[in-house]
Amino acid sequence: MIAPASPTAWTRKHLLGLEDLSKDEIVAILDTAESFSEVSRRSRKKVPALQGRVVFNLFFENSTRTRTSFSLSAKRLSADTQDFSASVSSLAKGETFIDTARNIEAMGADVMVVRHPTPGAPHLLSQHVKASIINAGDGAHEHPTQGLLDLLTIRRAKGKIEGLTVGLIGDIGHSRVARSNIWGLLKLGAKVILCGPPTLVPRGFEELGCEVAHDLDEVIGRCDVVNALRIQLERQERGLFPSLNEYSRFYGITQERLAKAGPDLLVLAPGPINRGVELTPEVADGPQSAILDQVTNGLAVRMAVLYLVTGKGEGLTPPIAWPT
Amino acid sequence: MIAPASPTAWTRKHLLGLEDLSKDEIVAILDTAESFSEVSRRSRKKVPALQGRVVFNLFFENSTRTRTSFSLSAKRLSADTQDFSASVSSLAKGETFIDTARNIEAMGADVMVVRHPTPGAPHLLSQHVKASIINAGDGAHEHPTQGLLDLLTIRRAKGKIEGLTVGLIGDIGHSRVARSNIWGLLKLGAKVILCGPPTLVPRGFEELGCEVAHDLDEVIGRCDVVNALRIQLERQERGLFPSLNEYSRFYGITQERLAKAGPDLLVLAPGPINRGVELTPEVADGPQSAILDQVTNGLAVRMAVLYLVTGKGEGLTPPIAWPT
Amino acid sequence: MIAPASPTAWTRKHLLGLEDLSKDEIVAILDTAESFSEVSRRSRKKVPALQGRVVFNLFFENSTRTRTSFSLSAKRLSADTQDFSASVSSLAKGETFIDTARNIEAMGADVMVVRHPTPGAPHLLSQHVKASIINAGDGAHEHPTQGLLDLLTIRRAKGKIEGLTVGLIGDIGHSRVARSNIWGLLKLGAKVILCGPPTLVPRGFEELGCEVAHDLDEVIGRCDVVNALRIQLERQERGLFPSLNEYSRFYGITQERLAKAGPDLLVLAPGPINRGVELTPEVADGPQSAILDQVTNGLAVRMAVLYLVTGKGEGLTPPIAWPT
Repeated sequence: MIAPASPTAWTRKHLLGLEDLSKDEIVAILDTAESFSEVSRRSRKKVPALQGRVVFNLFFENSTRTRTSFSLSAKRLSADTQDFSASVSSLAKGETFIDTARNIEAMGADVMVVRHPTPGAPHLLSQHVKASIINAGDGAHEHPTQGLLDLLTIRRAKGKIEGLTVGLIGDIGHSRVARSNIWGLLKLGAKVILCGPPTLVPRGFEELGCEVAHDLDEVIGRCDVVNALRIQLERQERGLFPSLNEYSRFYGITQERLAKAGPDLLVLAPGPINRGVELTPEVADGPQSAILDQVTNGLAVRMAVLYLVTGKGEGLTPPIAWPT
Repeated sequence: MIAPASPTAWTRKHLLGLEDLSKDEIVAILDTAESFSEVSRRSRKKVPALQGRVVFNLFFENSTRTRTSFSLSAKRLSADTQDFSASVSSLAKGETFIDTARNIEAMGADVMVVRHPTPGAPHLLSQHVKASIINAGDGAHEHPTQGLLDLLTIRRAKGKIEGLTVGLIGDIGHSRVARSNIWGLLKLGAKVILCGPPTLVPRGFEELGCEVAHDLDEVIGRCDVVNALRIQLERQERGLFPSLNEYSRFYGITQERLAKAGPDLLVLAPGPINRGVELTPEVADGPQSAILDQVTNGLAVRMAVLYLVTGKGEGLTPPIAWPT
Repeated sequence: MIAPASPTAWTRKHLLGLEDLSKDEIVAILDTAESFSEVSRRSRKKVPALQGRVVFNLFFENSTRTRTSFSLSAKRLSADTQDFSASVSSLAKGETFIDTARNIEAMGADVMVVRHPTPGAPHLLSQHVKASIINAGDGAHEHPTQGLLDLLTIRRAKGKIEGLTVGLIGDIGHSRVARSNIWGLLKLGAKVILCGPPTLVPRGFEELGCEVAHDLDEVIGRCDVVNALRIQLERQERGLFPSLNEYSRFYGITQERLAKAGPDLLVLAPGPINRGVELTPEVADGPQSAILDQVTNGLAVRMAVLYLVTGKGEGLTPPIAWPT
């Protein structure tokens, strides 16, 4: 019998973003995820915690990987899952987005995992339905489970987060992954350096205590961890950076940069990666890369979040081991 | 242990339409659905009744909601589900529709939930396969589980169906929902008023005992229930009614019309609704609206139908509670 | 309790093709499939063998039938299943195909069922991931589970394979089904006749001991089994055969040809069939046709393969009956 650590720190029904959470709440999720990691290493990768519960993926943007990760996490908890893909264009009026969610709730959804291009859409839903809402990415606002899986990956590799220096590299301005990382890292006591072309790094985060930099070669040696954010190729057409070659030359994580930074630098990157752009194949597949650990930790984090949000409000303590 | 009421009234293998059914058979489904409603209110919303059975959704028209409702109903009974979407255009010849179904049967399908644009397609299938066929909508012919969920919603709200007056409002002529409602309501002893523009209300149903009317303001005060059928916006282009504004002015369920009809009028509408067309947002979200109850009752009705059709032919009485 | 026959003959982690396998390994799969056939005839068509295992369908080509058959087979073994459809065009570089598979493995996939237009793609994957790989069709190379289900269908109908004469009719050159049949039939001691237009029958297989022929009327009387391969209509445009009518006249299995061949000739055809092209409707639906048996046997064969490949490497003997 595995007991999640510090579950008492969690009393929320929704996970809308990391900005809202306290340090203790984030630690409660990471500790719970740690106990679920053990389940994922079994050959029978399944526990009965959410048997008979219904988890809906309500995705208004394509995202095969995140959707698949949530589905598998829910199945690993023995929940029933249902995909409900919708196009925003078919929803002419604001209120019909709520109608769709209310219909899904009326079908018995206990949790809705929501991805939407509009920042705040999951928050809006949480005010109109009784089901638990998990934000799976809302515009450039937050992607909290990605932030949490990055935190878990760092904590497992480094043994701690407090006191580390973490560099977020690339397109900070348009990135919900960057925002969730920033909130999570700052709350857990890390120093955060945002490094990218001036067009892609907003200055607002300096006020929260982040350092803003533009020269990766100066920055990388001071980092314990770098997180190479994904470049959206369509940004290039809008003139926000000159070319992929130039981006890669100034901000790509290469073997040379890694050698200068030293063997303890941990490299993260949210997939799918553009090989040769954000990082070279040697770095992506090398010993300092934790890219695939991130994917594996994503399942543990999502199991933890599904488990915690459904427990709220009922004093429920579902079993996470099969009865013997 | 919950026992479905009057299951002995049911001996059919298929559910093709409400026109075929006797009053007792309809009541058997509603009573069975009533016992399944209790399951849906549990936090562990699942019973082992159909463990190891396979339910196929064989949809030749898009319908996310109906398909999702059937999938969840099947999962709630512990069946395995499989979607098999097919385009009619890829089926050049009539017999290959049968071939597709025979292939699905050879894969072990116990039930096929069939939606098809051609009236009678589910009936045709039922003559060529051994699996149970459930009609999930065949052209403008029938949509029996929608009719049944409307009946269940009325019976739960009003305590009975016999003796009630039910108005079906709008596009009767093209509506399979209207047809299934008419058969079910008449068999259970309700009075049915069909009310819409003359271009959209066929006169044939008068011979069965329905009243045909065109003035909603005259009709609504005599009704216990109104069911605001969905307007298919593409009908407008064919000149069957002049404009959405005009439709809404003459046939929309508004707060004013509701006030005149009195507080006991129950309002139904098959989703997805066009807010401001068939009914105003205040009515849709108001206390007399049972729109979301219809969605919830849809699951109970579909669980009941899946349970009853699979029991036929084997003397099967599957458990609907987990062994303790 | 049903025990699979000769499971000790199987020690492989992957199923990449029948060319690699020994006679004993093929017989081990067929014998295991035979025991799973019994499960498929139960009303509760499910065993707990792969509970908590995750089977991914990783399809880079559309194939509703094969994908559905694998999904149902996995569910019948109580595994969790996940579809992951990908377009080859979105994978610009060779290595990102591996990246996708590694990501899926990091999510906990135990088995990846892979369909890919490039011959050898499943072999490549098997060198880069720890999960079991099952080839579900790679270009014109192999489709081993189709070959196996054809073998099982022949063995069940004829009681043996050794000594039989099997005619493969039609487009041999472009057919992965033909290649897997050829390897399997030769290894199990059948005589194989390849019969089709000269443009569609490569001569290389003569060196392995197949007979190559072009006159079906001369050949059919010598066959115990004919397998009417599916004509890809797009080949016609490339001038490889003159017209469907002409193809059908020379190579179609008709009632007249069947009458000449005698009542013991068994007719197979991998679906979906083009009625009136590869075979006439009377033949397809007649008593000598085993087309639907092939579909049913496909599930048993795929259950056997999923069961055997996951058992490898752990000394695992999963139960195939529910504990009582």
